[in-house]
Amino acid sequence: MTLRLTDEKMVRIINHDEYDLPTETEKNVAGVALSAILDVLEDNVGFEIEVTKHIKPGSGVGSSSASAVGAVVAANKLLEERFSRLELAEFALKGEFLASQGRHADNVAPCLYGGFTLVRSVSPLDIVKIDFPKLFVTVIHPQIEIKTSEARKILPTEIPLRSAIQAWANVGALIAALSKGDYDLISRSLEDLIVEPVRKSLIPHFDELKTASLKVNALGGGISGSGPSVFMLSETFETAQSVEKAMREVYGNTKIEFNTYVSEINSEGVKILDK
Amino acid sequence: MTLRLTDEKMVRIINHDEYDLPTETEKNVAGVALSAILDVLEDNVGFEIEVTKHIKPGSGVGSSSASAVGAVVAANKLLEERFSRLELAEFALKGEFLASQGRHADNVAPCLYGGFTLVRSVSPLDIVKIDFPKLFVTVIHPQIEIKTSEARKILPTEIPLRSAIQAWANVGALIAALSKGDYDLISRSLEDLIVEPVRKSLIPHFDELKTASLKVNALGGGISGSGPSVFMLSETFETAQSVEKAMREVYGNTKIEFNTYVSEINSEGVKILDK
Repeated sequence: MTLRLTDEKMVRIINHDEYDLPTETEKNVAGVALSAILDVLEDNVGFEIEVTKHIKPGSGVGSSSASAVGAVVAANKLLEERFSRLELAEFALKGEFLASQGRHADNVAPCLYGGFTLVRSVSPLDIVKIDFPKLFVTVIHPQIEIKTSEARKILPTEIPLRSAIQAWANVGALIAALSKGDYDLISRSLEDLIVEPVRKSLIPHFDELKTASLKVNALGGGISGSGPSVFMLSETFETAQSVEKAMREVYGNTKIEFNTYVSEINSEGVKILDK
Repeated sequence: MTLRLTDEKMVRIINHDEYDLPTETEKNVAGVALSAILDVLEDNVGFEIEVTKHIKPGSGVGSSSASAVGAVVAANKLLEERFSRLELAEFALKGEFLASQGRHADNVAPCLYGGFTLVRSVSPLDIVKIDFPKLFVTVIHPQIEIKTSEARKILPTEIPLRSAIQAWANVGALIAALSKGDYDLISRSLEDLIVEPVRKSLIPHFDELKTASLKVNALGGGISGSGPSVFMLSETFETAQSVEKAMREVYGNTKIEFNTYVSEINSEGVKILDK
């Protein structure tokens, strides 16, 4: 993503990828996020932004947040860092709203702060950075479309209190495990008994992916966002690569196209590559 | 609590307090916990236990767990530490079951491990110790009886997924806040929108207690166990004392008898005072 200041109070968007995303400011997440900045700026400036996305939209790995956060971080750099990180998050949330039709910071927060983040509250925005040990993630992105609206619709509106308590315990334990760097506890806590059992029906071969990954020592994982991507965490890069291999074998037997990615968990978030 | 080894495979219980607790082994939480130990011991020994409780049973601060855990820790000392802490927790849980008619380690875990503990799972038992900063607690124990069965009955069996998510966020944030020693975040996370709004109806003047405590800088708090005790956390001993004063003023205007307690959060759990 490349951003330039212009002397006209508007946003110009140039896409260099094949995904045919809209270039109208109000229909583009980066455009909306940048507009939100222009709305509060008294200066008579605007932005020209060039974007080359490397991940197909609708993956569930937060690529729309990447655009929104990337745009506001770059803009803030050009504006001599006049906004705080929390203000940038608010601008990015406006872009994210366009993509997900909801105010949620699940993707904006880690993209902006790096590493693991917990969103305690969205109104007011309360983002907590979570300490974590060295961790690697493997993602498989099946090239199928899951409509966010459908992924939401199949969730129950009410859940048993008993299940909620069990999930509270796992969430709390996961945060403690990350903070302590306790890999065994991370593994035991990566258990979602509420959303995963319902949503996995939208992802072909989900159980096989998980079983194959755990067999080669993944710590655990689940659905990324609302899918269709599936992520697995591992303690080492080598294990994460074995997990990738195992996932590719599962999907190699199907006719579904897919991409896989292996990465260390990024602890910095979006960053300026070149001034 | 004083424990002695005897040469007869049985438990003898002697109470020194005014609470008229049963001395039949199978009706006494310490008795049941000690029996659980005798059940797995091949040695031909038994226990004589003397108990002086200082907190009225049914307070909600976990006094039955204190008895169960105290008994098994003392017994383990006399048996030359042959059981692990997790094994001791299992014995104590059997005693706790008698008091609460449920297998839950909410009180047994902190009593045994000290400080803040998170029970990720009760079957199998998975207890996580949580790091925490210096903290002080103020407790008010109104001398009214809340039947555990009633306190349970008024809880909803189902809750909105939306509320559950909000609660997950607060639980996770509280664990992160304790680990980091972030007092502001502890304060913001001490928010229970599920159980407290329902159960507080069983505790006279709950809202007034909370308002008065927050006014003198308590970090936050809520119902202790299933009540009727109410706890508030503070950053300093002085604040915890101001909270005590504020709580006493609220209850001083009522005809309800009450006790208050101020203590630093104990980080050791039950301990051997004298061999």
